[in-house]
Amino acid sequence: MHLWQLTATQASQRMARGELTSLAYTAACLERIAAREPALQAWAHLDPEAALAQARARDQVPRRGPLHGIPVGFKDVIRTRDLPTSFNSPLYTGHQAGEDAHSVAVLRSLGAVVLGKTQTLEFACGGQFPPTRNPWNLSRTPGGSSSGSGAAVADGMVPLALGTQTGGSTIRPAAFCGVYGMKPTWGRIPFDGIKSFAPHLDTVGLFARSADDLRLLLQAYALCDQPAPELAPLGELRLGVCRTPLWDQAEPQAQAAFEVALQQLGQAGVRLKELAWADEHANINVWQDDIMQDGGRSAFWQEMLAQPDQLHADFKAKLNNHLGLTPERMRASLDAVARARMAFEQSMDGLDAVLTLSAPGVAPLGLQTQGMATFNRLWTALQVPCLSIPALWSPDGLPMGLQLVSRRYEDHRLVEVAERLAPLLDLRKTPWN
Amino acid sequence: MHLWQLTATQASQRMARGELTSLAYTAACLERIAAREPALQAWAHLDPEAALAQARARDQVPRRGPLHGIPVGFKDVIRTRDLPTSFNSPLYTGHQAGEDAHSVAVLRSLGAVVLGKTQTLEFACGGQFPPTRNPWNLSRTPGGSSSGSGAAVADGMVPLALGTQTGGSTIRPAAFCGVYGMKPTWGRIPFDGIKSFAPHLDTVGLFARSADDLRLLLQAYALCDQPAPELAPLGELRLGVCRTPLWDQAEPQAQAAFEVALQQLGQAGVRLKELAWADEHANINVWQDDIMQDGGRSAFWQEMLAQPDQLHADFKAKLNNHLGLTPERMRASLDAVARARMAFEQSMDGLDAVLTLSAPGVAPLGLQTQGMATFNRLWTALQVPCLSIPALWSPDGLPMGLQLVSRRYEDHRLVEVAERLAPLLDLRKTPWN
Repeated sequence: MHLWQLTATQASQRMARGELTSLAYTAACLERIAAREPALQAWAHLDPEAALAQARARDQVPRRGPLHGIPVGFKDVIRTRDLPTSFNSPLYTGHQAGEDAHSVAVLRSLGAVVLGKTQTLEFACGGQFPPTRNPWNLSRTPGGSSSGSGAAVADGMVPLALGTQTGGSTIRPAAFCGVYGMKPTWGRIPFDGIKSFAPHLDTVGLFARSADDLRLLLQAYALCDQPAPELAPLGELRLGVCRTPLWDQAEPQAQAAFEVALQQLGQAGVRLKELAWADEHANINVWQDDIMQDGGRSAFWQEMLAQPDQLHADFKAKLNNHLGLTPERMRASLDAVARARMAFEQSMDGLDAVLTLSAPGVAPLGLQTQGMATFNRLWTALQVPCLSIPALWSPDGLPMGLQLVSRRYEDHRLVEVAERLAPLLDLRKTPWN
Repeated sequence: MHLWQLTATQASQRMARGELTSLAYTAACLERIAAREPALQAWAHLDPEAALAQARARDQVPRRGPLHGIPVGFKDVIRTRDLPTSFNSPLYTGHQAGEDAHSVAVLRSLGAVVLGKTQTLEFACGGQFPPTRNPWNLSRTPGGSSSGSGAAVADGMVPLALGTQTGGSTIRPAAFCGVYGMKPTWGRIPFDGIKSFAPHLDTVGLFARSADDLRLLLQAYALCDQPAPELAPLGELRLGVCRTPLWDQAEPQAQAAFEVALQQLGQAGVRLKELAWADEHANINVWQDDIMQDGGRSAFWQEMLAQPDQLHADFKAKLNNHLGLTPERMRASLDAVARARMAFEQSMDGLDAVLTLSAPGVAPLGLQTQGMATFNRLWTALQVPCLSIPALWSPDGLPMGLQLVSRRYEDHRLVEVAERLAPLLDLRKTPWN
């Protein structure tokens, strides 16, 4: 086994026992990157010497917790005080932000190594696509907009990465890349220092190769309860099954893999309950799009004023209110989402989590696409926590995600449920073996 | 009349006609500051030479719109690329952010002069109070947390300033200082680059000495509709009157001044309708506090990790979840607010705006207080636009605000209504005559 194959939790345990240094682990990740980056193109900015210097410094001071010495990648819409932050936009080539985003500063304070910035769709929104390829099949997208974070974690380049989600930008690439992804409850990790797109929706996203690695990140951001939520024994766990009003938009291979997972869980004694999605809330993805496009009417105004000739037509369309959104329509869409949120959370009464698809199928062919956010938009609008487990597989062996969803503020419980369920599911594959 | 007494609109019109330079107007503001700042203490960071250099540069290029050459003050929780941003916190003394917040970059692109940073309560939240005094009475607070913005605009130091509001941090100081203040619909001016406190609530706030000056700022942020909303003639305007469930917490002199304003409007033919606030929504300020305190559980985590010994106990209490907030309680509070929002906006059907108090009375004595946000918290929770008109006065001649509230996304209409109503009200006073 190569060092770069270790999860953050495994590496951290070795470091705590004095059996591994941050320098060795970080160097192993950089070697993996050197070998694979020409094919994958996951990184926007990387400074290996600076990363190694951070690792050496970590090795020389007392450990500040389990993330001490662990390399982390950051989507390049998240500001860093050392590496450039360029949003994959020609308006910000080589841009130096000067300060860490809150989400970076927290991990740096806890001893993490800021390994590099990962590729993104321009402003996590539109415009220029990233060059990143899917580690499972180089002719396919890794999904986006957190493309580099998904691909880099999947390929063993880095154990942890941060992204963002406004539509499906974390759960979708996690699914397409076959890694764990999590969108915590909206607002619980401050968005300070990250380029915003639509404030009702923008959420920091987490990428890892195990559920306990996701827990490390939740702990770092103080999102874990003390004491931990008590879970029922496996045979008494109760999960909802939500096929959403959009199930017919899922590929047959995704629907089939979902049924396999339900069987695996059911055979282990997990009790499953079908959840209906009321007809009156069926348009939630349309309402989500209203809210997202409305965000774009403001988010890129700064760039429009500063460099109108350089700004991609995608952003100008949003600034020009291409949907013709009115005050009445915005209030109606926002309130419809609020009602759907209350109905969904009420339907979860007595359930530990809800199962659904992370994506409508496997990663599409080509790099000028990100795939569909069909099974993400609704949950992003609801501001509820979502967690993708790499537990569904196509007949060709491509990953699709099994998505767990819960009520707001149940982030810790959700990761506990995921860890409980994971051994029952089909998780054994990695792109490297 | 002194040049510093001009509103932004008046100065802009003179500049457009070639009768006034940005240099002369900016210099006049700086002279006013030089004369009054020792008493008022409104500014956290000021660089007169740099401001004059900006003004000279503005005078040498084609005008970029009505804000070209107009000086603006920015609350010191809003990042600026030139002046320090120190949040009135000992953790950030002399801190250089390196980048403009979105709200600063937009005004700078439109030709505004970044005059200086205004005093604030620490992190716009708690901890250290600002030294700022109320221009109407130096023994009183100007209100906060946007204390410097309110005081500086009121005293003629600068025609326009930005602040923020999470509880009552814009409308309250606007009321206590006798200026126009506006909290636009949540999310419509991106919060990027501003220190966040509670993301459901945090809103950029606007300060000015006239309604048309507020409109200049709304236009700058592209919040004005094309075409402008059509208003009924004055005699057909219909306004709600909302005394909220908290009217008994208002001082008798505030209640009395409110009745005077209603009489003034009624005599001009404005039709007034009393709006009930349903008992089931009476606890909205408690729910707002849950949401605000919950924000504080995350917002200051970065500072807690970096400099725990320096962090004020106010922030540590929030980080330690001093209210004992649970997931269940957070969902209940958020959903209760969503229901109250729908009920309030429905009750506005057929109304042009709603009248209420901006503050429960006049600015309290002392500088170790900010006054109460009793009549602000609920509207901040509802995310609706609010606008304070300096139209209520105590028998001692101290200002209190008349607050106009509307439905989400009716920002432009709200400022039009305010401009229509202002001449009917008692606006003639300034602290300098």
